[in-house]
Amino acid sequence: MPKLPFKILGIEHVGIAVKDLNSISEIFGELLGLDLHRREKVDNQQVITDIYHAGKDKLEFLKATSPDSPIAKFLGKRPEGMHHIALIVDNLQSALNYLNENDVQLIDKSPRIGAEGLQIAFIHPKSTGGVLVELCEKK
Amino acid sequence: MPKLPFKILGIEHVGIAVKDLNSISEIFGELLGLDLHRREKVDNQQVITDIYHAGKDKLEFLKATSPDSPIAKFLGKRPEGMHHIALIVDNLQSALNYLNENDVQLIDKSPRIGAEGLQIAFIHPKSTGGVLVELCEKK
Repeated sequence: MPKLPFKILGIEHVGIAVKDLNSISEIFGELLGLDLHRREKVDNQQVITDIYHAGKDKLEFLKATSPDSPIAKFLGKRPEGMHHIALIVDNLQSALNYLNENDVQLIDKSPRIGAEGLQIAFIHPKSTGGVLVELCEKK
Repeated sequence: MPKLPFKILGIEHVGIAVKDLNSISEIFGELLGLDLHRREKVDNQQVITDIYHAGKDKLEFLKATSPDSPIAKFLGKRPEGMHHIALIVDNLQSALNYLNENDVQLIDKSPRIGAEGLQIAFIHPKSTGGVLVELCEKK
């Protein structure tokens, strides 16, 4: 196998599309005991996100703030539930270049800023067996 | 907030329902560089699962081996994609008892054996904002 110009380091978070952040707080916060780490408005994605810590990991619940939000469009076609999985990568731009050269369909060909100030980019689910994969890098 | 009789320690894996494990191997194995850790047949779930390591974390791709498999039923209603999220818990039976007492709808009220010999149980997605949550404990 050829050596890749980047390395996946782990799962950064799992993103979950919801209509109501309060009912999430009841089950994931109170009954399962996860810590609500922060609430953030991400204007370029038109979402509010509640980020819960699950031990060493994170769940990111996403609620649309506008009908044009990707989350509103997702919930127009599907029920509430898992929306994307975010993988941490050591060099996001190298990864995007390599995937692009190998005909992987990318939503973002260069990184943009996501929640918590991470550099992020999405791979199109057509290329990944229906899974919306976010790659992200901590600067 | 009351002290819970269990603690969520992190994400054990994300489960992804697919029709074809080979095309997954191309994108997640070759192009993204994840390690195929093991392939396992889980008879009581009627699935074959390919478990990939993503750095410190795991992705579990699931293919039905029978039309009665939960994965076949899922793919009868929805496109390929994320199927469940598995959270590690320090005491699975205590968690199930507590959730049951608090009217959370459980698919399994007591643990059974899942892939890699883990003790597992599922919470019904009706109680968790559409997310199928697996709780698991390493013995």
